[in-house]
Amino acid sequence: MEVGLDLHGERNFDLLLRKILHRLTEVMGAERSSIFLLDEEERELRSKVAEGSEEITVPLGVGIAGEVARTGRSLRIPDVYRDSRFDPAFDHRSGFRTHSLLTVPLKTSRSGLIGVVQVLNKTDGGSFNEEDEELAEAFAGIAAVAIETKQLFLELEQSFDAVIKGLNAALDARDPAALGHSFMVQAFADALARIMELPGDQRRLVHYAAALHDFGKIGVPDRILTKQSPLEEAEREEYELHALKTKILLERLNLVGDLAEVAKIAPFNHKRFGGGGFPPGPPEEFEIPLGARIIAVADELHNLRSSRYGNTPLPMDGAVARIAAQQGERFDPAVVAALLKLCPELPAVEAEGRRNYEAVRIHFS
Amino acid sequence: MEVGLDLHGERNFDLLLRKILHRLTEVMGAERSSIFLLDEEERELRSKVAEGSEEITVPLGVGIAGEVARTGRSLRIPDVYRDSRFDPAFDHRSGFRTHSLLTVPLKTSRSGLIGVVQVLNKTDGGSFNEEDEELAEAFAGIAAVAIETKQLFLELEQSFDAVIKGLNAALDARDPAALGHSFMVQAFADALARIMELPGDQRRLVHYAAALHDFGKIGVPDRILTKQSPLEEAEREEYELHALKTKILLERLNLVGDLAEVAKIAPFNHKRFGGGGFPPGPPEEFEIPLGARIIAVADELHNLRSSRYGNTPLPMDGAVARIAAQQGERFDPAVVAALLKLCPELPAVEAEGRRNYEAVRIHFS
Repeated sequence: MEVGLDLHGERNFDLLLRKILHRLTEVMGAERSSIFLLDEEERELRSKVAEGSEEITVPLGVGIAGEVARTGRSLRIPDVYRDSRFDPAFDHRSGFRTHSLLTVPLKTSRSGLIGVVQVLNKTDGGSFNEEDEELAEAFAGIAAVAIETKQLFLELEQSFDAVIKGLNAALDARDPAALGHSFMVQAFADALARIMELPGDQRRLVHYAAALHDFGKIGVPDRILTKQSPLEEAEREEYELHALKTKILLERLNLVGDLAEVAKIAPFNHKRFGGGGFPPGPPEEFEIPLGARIIAVADELHNLRSSRYGNTPLPMDGAVARIAAQQGERFDPAVVAALLKLCPELPAVEAEGRRNYEAVRIHFS
Repeated sequence: MEVGLDLHGERNFDLLLRKILHRLTEVMGAERSSIFLLDEEERELRSKVAEGSEEITVPLGVGIAGEVARTGRSLRIPDVYRDSRFDPAFDHRSGFRTHSLLTVPLKTSRSGLIGVVQVLNKTDGGSFNEEDEELAEAFAGIAAVAIETKQLFLELEQSFDAVIKGLNAALDARDPAALGHSFMVQAFADALARIMELPGDQRRLVHYAAALHDFGKIGVPDRILTKQSPLEEAEREEYELHALKTKILLERLNLVGDLAEVAKIAPFNHKRFGGGGFPPGPPEEFEIPLGARIIAVADELHNLRSSRYGNTPLPMDGAVARIAAQQGERFDPAVVAALLKLCPELPAVEAEGRRNYEAVRIHFS
């Protein structure tokens, strides 16, 4: 029961697999454990987090793990070197010497077989008995459900990410001169959050808030959005409404849980650290969420690097200097400090943003 | 362990809560159990799936459940009617007579307190002892993690849904004459899938594929997309490319898991059941996924009901008759049969699609 709690409480997939191996080795009184997950499309098993060795793939039905995966039945082998199905290459690669081996399928009622676990060498030197097999199967039942739950979650999160990319591709298609603005700002903001060592959940928020920071621009007319010269006063006012529209839209979308915070960050990247900016109203200076202050710098960096609104693009160091000159007034000095620290990496970060954009870019015919 | 497996394997949230109550009552040898979940914002507990009674809300700190939620410590009460914290209104509403009561907090390491469970009346007539309390706390530990995991999943799924809505709002803003086409098609397709009694995971696929069936239209130039008269031959060819663009885009987005199927459904709603249609190439007739055949009917229904491309909108029965006349040739007779069955509900379904659209509609200034 304690194991089940521990496994299901783990949010990180790799750490979950490591925990499973650690717990399994401990519970079974063994020297080591290993885990293989099924790649259904490829019809093969892939070793995961095998300590001190690279990923191993085994076709379904081949070797001991492959046979357990194929039949769905556990196998106990007292001396693997006397079993023709055992491939000594495993030991050669890991530098470990396997004697007795217990291999158990990972199955769930929803997905069927999802992989196998192997327990290697009892610490007392004996071989695994029927009781060990039952215990390992019970453990595998818990582990399989924990893995499946985590996989479903990761799949949904990847799909969520994919749809946000699609949304940005749709936005950027309206404004080709923006050259993938949302993707570039996201790449810069992610890098700043990393340099500033924000915790994982905060970085996730910055990631999605950056992607959605200009969502309200779908409510800005083409004649303003794509204008290739500086905006007139009335146009600028209409343009600035986009931040308010981002706020209204994100609130309407009703993001929930951790992601609800995105609506509290994304619309506020045009607020000025020293006071003022838009949209009008709260939050006032010093209450602007850190995520919004990060996105403010990322946003301006890409604006200075692009040729929107008839700008002449600046070289990277010129753009950084221009931002640094406005710290305290327009930008948070802490974020500017992170930007200066990030300087040597900026060309690589920019190239990554460009790649993300090109991957989903829509070319109008 | 069996309980843990059973709980974590359950995908439906309400069924999960019911299972928790059923199992808890069984394990504890009690007459009944109830569960309250914390609404952190409202600072109150809400009863869930209490059999035979409506939802009850309890402010944090009030009554027995409220006190356990506030202190995070279990409470055992041998005779609740001698305890001033007990509110007899619970029994009045449920028609149940509570004698002894064990109340245990639901806590996880990630979220802290998420609710409480209550176990009512030992079947042997005695009161709950320390051992019962320990058992209930162990059970509550498993149940809390199962609930939290499911809540995180539901939150992410709701956010995924929200972002798809945002994507559609962005698409529809480009083509105001479409009057929320994606939302309308989704409402019709959802209703058809329901009438056809598709299993839950298939209905989920239809739901998302319908929302994304015109995603490729962001690659269609304005002059074609918003033209208010019938398309010329060359324009029609360019227009038809959108299905191919939907296919390419959805494949690029790299949706994974169950949702990967969306890319295999969404682009094919212009394939004709009797052969032909676009995009050219596989799948050929009779291999068109059912989801795409459903969306084909939903799509045409909204086209006939709207004034795009200079059409005169048809009344609902006229639109249905027009589609029915093309069954076998352009549309799948099974889907047309479902449409005819759905007829009395169609105005309500249409109104629902309209509401979904209005909720996130972007008004250009």
